[in-house]
Amino acid sequence: MTGNTFGKVFSITTAGESHGPGNVVIIDGLPAGLELSEDDLKVDLARRRPGQSKIVTQRKEADEPEILSGVFQGKTTGTSLAILIRNQDQRSRDYSDIADKYRPGHADFTFDAKFGIRDYRGGGRSSARETAVRVAAGAVAKKLLAQLHGIQIIGYVKQVGDIQAHIPDPAAITTEQVEANIVRCPDADAATKMIALIEQVRDEQDSIGGTSELVATGVPAGWGEPVFDKIKADLGKAMFSLPAVLGVEYGIGFGCATLRGTQNNDLFESEENRITTQTNRHGGILGGITSGMPIILRCAIKPTSSLSQSQETITRDGETTTIATRGRHDPCLLPRFVPMGEAMLAIVLADHCLRHRLSQL
Amino acid sequence: MTGNTFGKVFSITTAGESHGPGNVVIIDGLPAGLELSEDDLKVDLARRRPGQSKIVTQRKEADEPEILSGVFQGKTTGTSLAILIRNQDQRSRDYSDIADKYRPGHADFTFDAKFGIRDYRGGGRSSARETAVRVAAGAVAKKLLAQLHGIQIIGYVKQVGDIQAHIPDPAAITTEQVEANIVRCPDADAATKMIALIEQVRDEQDSIGGTSELVATGVPAGWGEPVFDKIKADLGKAMFSLPAVLGVEYGIGFGCATLRGTQNNDLFESEENRITTQTNRHGGILGGITSGMPIILRCAIKPTSSLSQSQETITRDGETTTIATRGRHDPCLLPRFVPMGEAMLAIVLADHCLRHRLSQL
Amino acid sequence: MTGNTFGKVFSITTAGESHGPGNVVIIDGLPAGLELSEDDLKVDLARRRPGQSKIVTQRKEADEPEILSGVFQGKTTGTSLAILIRNQDQRSRDYSDIADKYRPGHADFTFDAKFGIRDYRGGGRSSARETAVRVAAGAVAKKLLAQLHGIQIIGYVKQVGDIQAHIPDPAAITTEQVEANIVRCPDADAATKMIALIEQVRDEQDSIGGTSELVATGVPAGWGEPVFDKIKADLGKAMFSLPAVLGVEYGIGFGCATLRGTQNNDLFESEENRITTQTNRHGGILGGITSGMPIILRCAIKPTSSLSQSQETITRDGETTTIATRGRHDPCLLPRFVPMGEAMLAIVLADHCLRHRLSQL
Amino acid sequence: MTGNTFGKVFSITTAGESHGPGNVVIIDGLPAGLELSEDDLKVDLARRRPGQSKIVTQRKEADEPEILSGVFQGKTTGTSLAILIRNQDQRSRDYSDIADKYRPGHADFTFDAKFGIRDYRGGGRSSARETAVRVAAGAVAKKLLAQLHGIQIIGYVKQVGDIQAHIPDPAAITTEQVEANIVRCPDADAATKMIALIEQVRDEQDSIGGTSELVATGVPAGWGEPVFDKIKADLGKAMFSLPAVLGVEYGIGFGCATLRGTQNNDLFESEENRITTQTNRHGGILGGITSGMPIILRCAIKPTSSLSQSQETITRDGETTTIATRGRHDPCLLPRFVPMGEAMLAIVLADHCLRHRLSQL
Repeated sequence: MTGNTFGKVFSITTAGESHGPGNVVIIDGLPAGLELSEDDLKVDLARRRPGQSKIVTQRKEADEPEILSGVFQGKTTGTSLAILIRNQDQRSRDYSDIADKYRPGHADFTFDAKFGIRDYRGGGRSSARETAVRVAAGAVAKKLLAQLHGIQIIGYVKQVGDIQAHIPDPAAITTEQVEANIVRCPDADAATKMIALIEQVRDEQDSIGGTSELVATGVPAGWGEPVFDKIKADLGKAMFSLPAVLGVEYGIGFGCATLRGTQNNDLFESEENRITTQTNRHGGILGGITSGMPIILRCAIKPTSSLSQSQETITRDGETTTIATRGRHDPCLLPRFVPMGEAMLAIVLADHCLRHRLSQL
Repeated sequence: MTGNTFGKVFSITTAGESHGPGNVVIIDGLPAGLELSEDDLKVDLARRRPGQSKIVTQRKEADEPEILSGVFQGKTTGTSLAILIRNQDQRSRDYSDIADKYRPGHADFTFDAKFGIRDYRGGGRSSARETAVRVAAGAVAKKLLAQLHGIQIIGYVKQVGDIQAHIPDPAAITTEQVEANIVRCPDADAATKMIALIEQVRDEQDSIGGTSELVATGVPAGWGEPVFDKIKADLGKAMFSLPAVLGVEYGIGFGCATLRGTQNNDLFESEENRITTQTNRHGGILGGITSGMPIILRCAIKPTSSLSQSQETITRDGETTTIATRGRHDPCLLPRFVPMGEAMLAIVLADHCLRHRLSQL
Repeated sequence: MTGNTFGKVFSITTAGESHGPGNVVIIDGLPAGLELSEDDLKVDLARRRPGQSKIVTQRKEADEPEILSGVFQGKTTGTSLAILIRNQDQRSRDYSDIADKYRPGHADFTFDAKFGIRDYRGGGRSSARETAVRVAAGAVAKKLLAQLHGIQIIGYVKQVGDIQAHIPDPAAITTEQVEANIVRCPDADAATKMIALIEQVRDEQDSIGGTSELVATGVPAGWGEPVFDKIKADLGKAMFSLPAVLGVEYGIGFGCATLRGTQNNDLFESEENRITTQTNRHGGILGGITSGMPIILRCAIKPTSSLSQSQETITRDGETTTIATRGRHDPCLLPRFVPMGEAMLAIVLADHCLRHRLSQL
Repeated sequence: MTGNTFGKVFSITTAGESHGPGNVVIIDGLPAGLELSEDDLKVDLARRRPGQSKIVTQRKEADEPEILSGVFQGKTTGTSLAILIRNQDQRSRDYSDIADKYRPGHADFTFDAKFGIRDYRGGGRSSARETAVRVAAGAVAKKLLAQLHGIQIIGYVKQVGDIQAHIPDPAAITTEQVEANIVRCPDADAATKMIALIEQVRDEQDSIGGTSELVATGVPAGWGEPVFDKIKADLGKAMFSLPAVLGVEYGIGFGCATLRGTQNNDLFESEENRITTQTNRHGGILGGITSGMPIILRCAIKPTSSLSQSQETITRDGETTTIATRGRHDPCLLPRFVPMGEAMLAIVLADHCLRHRLSQL
């Protein structure tokens, strides 16, 4: 009831804090027979890992996943699969500063209001550290989707500050293009500018926001449920459950506000017994159910709240004070958000992939 | 598993189609002792009802709610509460047109892909008709929130096409201001222009999109869960579960993409033992948990897909054809969206209001 | 969270009290394409109905089911299916007696302790009246199981007081044998004695307990989940969720306590590529998963708590008083339990039937 | 959806196999502020552990629990709490025998039927090894119940084979009495006979069944839900979810079948503003809700299926063969069942303890 489980058929339950012994995820609902090993988890974990480039946090975390159960002789058994990622950087440190002060933009105050107690070491359960096991579970979901339907999940950075990438066809972007630069923007020119901007704000002890676009291709028509569990609803929840996400839109998104029906409707057509639409303002989702067109969504990510420059704030007792976050934080969350967003997209699709088996007699 | 239930403690389960006998909601988790009668449901049902003004659909639906259970001697009993709203307008009609054609922007094709069968009368389960019982349940949630915490839920239309309302302080808007005009925009000048625009697009056999802003005031700090069931995540799911919503943002929303941390962080301050923030770009939610500041979110609503002018489409067999929607549809969904959005906001808050009782020893 | 939903894929959510407007069930998870009408529900509802014979309560309830949604052109649509059964016998009556007194063996006191308020008319939500919609939902589950797998669900009365039926082969019992007498015991000699005993206790203003045996044949091997959702666990919950059930056992049941492993183990054998066991002390369930052998379980049902003779009790204020239940109650719950038990057995199997689709890649 | 989660508010999700790296449980819903350390888990784990006495299996398992999350500075944080118990005895061994043969009474065949693949090492997920983390979670639940309400949970062995313990007052039994002998039967005379019988069947390469009684005292009136989540239903599911349980009854249990209402009804009385019943045939549960009287239930446990003597069986291919279980197995499951049953009883009560906070306004 404290919301550590996500998904209904393919579901993940997680535990772990930033500076405790480790993080763990239990995946329930994975069918038997999928080939899987720790190696399958490592690619995306490396993409999420701190210290991967000069424009992300320089903390050290090895992120070595250990599969504790659910795999036998290289294949999933159909029983619950647990993955453990131990925390490395648990050195004892002086936390007296953040123990008593509320960092602006963080969950320090709200955790105290909720629980009356707070693991203040690195943000505890509110730290983005918890997303490591989501990314591991997402890698499992991706493998399931790829094997069963050839589905591909691709995310990238669309915007950092005022710099917007030009992406003529989101469904044509490849992982190689995304991974070609450290900011994970497939528009090389924009990427160069984004990297420069991120380095600039970092040098100014500041941070910067942005948007990320996520695409799934190969999803069959007919996935999703009609009312509360619309694909768009589950995706909305999935994305907003990630730290720092302030907005989510799919297809034309907020752009629909200024359109007329004649401008917005995507017209159906039929090619070789396959029904498609001429355009994709609906982002692959109609009535909450997939249409067979690429699923496209975007998330708005706020600038990192942790700043190494001094900010005004208050103590737990309401006294005015200042705080500067020690340690090394991401000047921009976007490059590391990409694998997190992809993971949640994959997890939602894996859930609905399996749920679809229940629709017809 | 087909997603007809929403919420974990205060939860609603719904059934019903556009042209079947009726729609029903079962509310589970409503505590015993709340005064409640059918009259409590009627105000919001009237605000959602077709035919309420010249700028909405002119269909006739009485929307008389009947409480079937869960209330005794004027008070809730703590057991499941069912509300039935019969459909009135069930006259048999010639549906051969939409039975075989896929309306652009609708769920006709995707329902067929999912279920292999489709109740085509008025969209069946995909019709916004299903939101009537959500609004009834939302009225119950509003009453619970008002009685326990004095919480107020207000929604209004923020934008229609290019016309934007000027709302200096969302938290100061009153129901009276919203209900002062038929488009439900508290900026009177903008409202006049919106009404004119809606009438224009209606006369041109077209439709128009827009945005709605939703505000909850009086919500205590500490509601919401840290990981998957963040308040923002549940609100995101709630809003995206409503028909025609293509985007959701809270606080500064997509505007965060161009801000720096120093510009975006809301600084804490303490007044008379109450901790607040100097600004509210975080929309009342930090780390997925309420901060005690007003909750503010916005939804993007697409232009109505049903158009009375002819549109190209295909038949179930893939043959090219045209379709013009007969019957009278909303030229703009926004005025009737407001009570739907409020209902879902109230339902999410009622759920977390009760869940908060479980947080501490 | 108040437990009005049962099942995970094929799930039912119910509402309704004994003397309110009616009872309703929403079935979620029923696949599209099953032929269904109200007629399919009426046979079992008639078997559960009061007034069906001289040995059950003589209350009048018509139990006319109305399908409110989820069926179109005679087939299920895959969306939520609601069934409404109105209460007929709602005449206002003088309830002052039971309003203030706690009936022995009933939930009057415990409801007050839980909710602080209680719909005392006929027991309100604690009345067995709520099982009417379970039986309706069970009829839907039975139809699904019969169509997909040819599964048959049969229940009967095994024991009333000291009278035990002799049932050489539970899996061979037919509905016709069960319905051949009003006590629903397929052993005709035992049935005659049971009826005489029930009439005797009724005449003595008393009641009598008994046991019922439930059998499912045709269930394939492999249904059920390994740990918490073992078939036996879900069946246990299902049966204990019915009023008056004090004990549940399957296969050899409590008889296993005195057996040795060599006496209890059922040995496997293989016939024409089908694996079976030579005996069925395991009641068709091994490790919580179906073995393909008939599922056999038994429930112990307590004697009706309502007695027309005077019993000692106390008032809400703790004052000593006496109570005699007016109205006409079942002198023995067993004959009407049979369709309730069958319904819950069918609902559990329908749930696991669908869940089984998720087990393998 | 594969049923690795139990409980709704206080809920546990488990993973792990007999011979994999380890077993893990994530507890969700534990309120913040409970003092907790690994030491709290060790007492019950030692009671469940193999090798604890001469009448249980002599396998070696250390069962050292590690709390991975959810505790900070010795108190629970209100976030998910994970406990890891590594498996020690993972030496590679020759499993070719059980890999291809179906052990009578085990889940080998049914797992193959369900998943098409099976971790045959020690039974994999079907092994009682998975109950170690249940017992750890149960210890947490016990501590919560004791601290909030002074509730005590006691289990003991009631019967082994034909030897029945004489327990005049189940609610008066103490842990010390239970732990006074290795069979965990508080009737010393019966215990001596039980131990002798267990040693005898072990020497005869056989096994023996029995029953266990479980008691909770101090539970307030008013816990449980009226319909599907009756306390008795959740307890029934909890107990049947444990390996080898073939029957569950509470209060008078199956004994009710031969009673009349006048004999079975427990009459209310009031003492010093506390309402009790003169007798407790209802086992502390009326209408599925606790009455404040001691909760009493009994489970029937089958004789261990694994036998070191040779039994007939078949191979996966249906060929006739024989099998004798190597390794050392419990000749009687009862002594080690006691902490498992207590754990599940505690987990159910902890769940309803917290759910009760939601009942009233």
